[in-house]
Amino acid sequence: MPAMLAACAEAHPNIALIKYWGNRDHRINLPANSSISFNLDGLVTRTLVVFDPHLNQDRLVINGRERYREPLKRVQRILAWVREHSGKYLYAHVISVNNFPMEAGIASSASAFAALALAATKAAGMHLDERALSRLARLGSGSACRSVPDGFVEWRAGVRDEDSYAFTLFPPEYWDLWDCIAVVSAASKPYSSKEGHRFAETSPIQWARVTDAPRRLEWCRQALKNRDFQALAEVVELDAHLLHAVMQTSTPSLLYWEPATVALMHQVREWRKQGWNVAYTLDAGPNVHILCTSDFAMRVEQELQARPDVQQVLTARPGKGARLVPLDLCRDLFRQGNLPLPTDLL
Amino acid sequence: MPAMLAACAEAHPNIALIKYWGNRDHRINLPANSSISFNLDGLVTRTLVVFDPHLNQDRLVINGRERYREPLKRVQRILAWVREHSGKYLYAHVISVNNFPMEAGIASSASAFAALALAATKAAGMHLDERALSRLARLGSGSACRSVPDGFVEWRAGVRDEDSYAFTLFPPEYWDLWDCIAVVSAASKPYSSKEGHRFAETSPIQWARVTDAPRRLEWCRQALKNRDFQALAEVVELDAHLLHAVMQTSTPSLLYWEPATVALMHQVREWRKQGWNVAYTLDAGPNVHILCTSDFAMRVEQELQARPDVQQVLTARPGKGARLVPLDLCRDLFRQGNLPLPTDLL
Repeated sequence: MPAMLAACAEAHPNIALIKYWGNRDHRINLPANSSISFNLDGLVTRTLVVFDPHLNQDRLVINGRERYREPLKRVQRILAWVREHSGKYLYAHVISVNNFPMEAGIASSASAFAALALAATKAAGMHLDERALSRLARLGSGSACRSVPDGFVEWRAGVRDEDSYAFTLFPPEYWDLWDCIAVVSAASKPYSSKEGHRFAETSPIQWARVTDAPRRLEWCRQALKNRDFQALAEVVELDAHLLHAVMQTSTPSLLYWEPATVALMHQVREWRKQGWNVAYTLDAGPNVHILCTSDFAMRVEQELQARPDVQQVLTARPGKGARLVPLDLCRDLFRQGNLPLPTDLL
Repeated sequence: MPAMLAACAEAHPNIALIKYWGNRDHRINLPANSSISFNLDGLVTRTLVVFDPHLNQDRLVINGRERYREPLKRVQRILAWVREHSGKYLYAHVISVNNFPMEAGIASSASAFAALALAATKAAGMHLDERALSRLARLGSGSACRSVPDGFVEWRAGVRDEDSYAFTLFPPEYWDLWDCIAVVSAASKPYSSKEGHRFAETSPIQWARVTDAPRRLEWCRQALKNRDFQALAEVVELDAHLLHAVMQTSTPSLLYWEPATVALMHQVREWRKQGWNVAYTLDAGPNVHILCTSDFAMRVEQELQARPDVQQVLTARPGKGARLVPLDLCRDLFRQGNLPLPTDLL
């Protein structure tokens, strides 16, 4: 097996400031509206892809466990694209690890598909530019396209595959925002995000959320540009409430909030009244992402850790996009996949 | 003072199944959308009005306490209308009592203005039909117009004062639904409902809620007509979530929910999965109204009373509209207002 049919990449999940919910075209994850996010540098997915002529089917190992069915199928969508466009018609080992607890309800699909898109194309000898890589990651999971570029990112919705991709608005160091994630429930979701995106259109207010999106996007871009935390707080909380409004009013109704979720919302509003630069947002789950400027991060983290209704606190700052990892730093992944180390690493 | 310039009336608050939120015209409480409710027979406001040539200003006494400013002003709006249309240009004593705790967050303005409209017009010797009475009550508080007719009521929004009034859809005994009200917080609201109605138009989804209202109204009418609890549960919860979605996404953002509110929502959904006929709705506050068919009412009430996060449980069934109370049953109200009993009652 030639060493060049293996590649490893890593990527971060991202937290959306303006949310993605609902698709214009479910087949290719063409979103109903544009969105804005930043990558979370503290949380990492690292993925090794090895195309192997000796395999007779694709393999997926996540955190040391072989995976089949749905997760494997989604990975195969990316592999199929790569095989078709590279001409390398080989099955692959896909070995992936997350440094953050998957059971904590932090979506790992964004970082997973961003890392996979980069590792798989590279392993097949392809050199995609950022835009093409972002589009490819999108096929695995919509929000994964936002984990490809660096820092603060906008995913322009577009109207077809070619023009639906993410790009950097500002580099990670532009604004030292922190995301303190209060994990309040480890309960797994009754519905996947993938299903949720399909339910969005059953809500009588989804179209109003989408129609109003350009206003919120511009509001958010300006807040980032001016590093205006108050403006950012207002639009981010509004947008999170719009997301959950749609989810709660869809059929079936998705009520992700827990008692602690609401308690934390009130707490953040109270802190902001006292002059703290804090704001909350939520993805499709009960955990509360508390955004703050770096001068408040330690205090927020301490306060959260002291609460009995918070099970765990994770913190992250704006991070880079998907990037390659030298294979000699990935020996553990080869081991997790029971793969022999390439000869040049021995 | 001739005995006929005094009258007493009582009315119930109502719980909306399809909510009123936002106005087309704030001056006369012309609502943005039609709504449906039923009167809550367990909760009563009783109001005595006495026009008195010896007074040199209007007086308002609620639960034995003299009230001034805002509450008095709103009452005077009704009194002014009555004076103008009856020609009885006299100041009035308005003595009112509620049998339910005002601090429990159960809106008393609906029952208060329905009772006031009837008592004041009657005291002035006027005989308004139900529709005119409903319109008059609406001037004091929009939802008060729904407490005028009996039982299950629709308030047709209309487009001007003349055609915005409530009428009976079904009499109280048509369907023995119970409302078990879980009082979870006695905290007074940061904003009044009157202010909230003005904020509604700042939400980017209010227009979608209003545009979709005819569909929900018809869904609710059919559910009532067919006594179809499942259909009622679905539309009532959807409508409550739409109301709170608008409130949470308005400027300022109104987050009325408390941790216990969300805990109860999950509990009700869980009960319904187990086959109980239960559904929740919420007004502009954190308390959860749990609607159920009579066969589940006792169980629901017991379960609620056993919860540490529920402070108080009130129950009510569909009730009558505003009605007169003979003056000889109102001696206590005369006493509370320090008024001499009319000679024919002595």
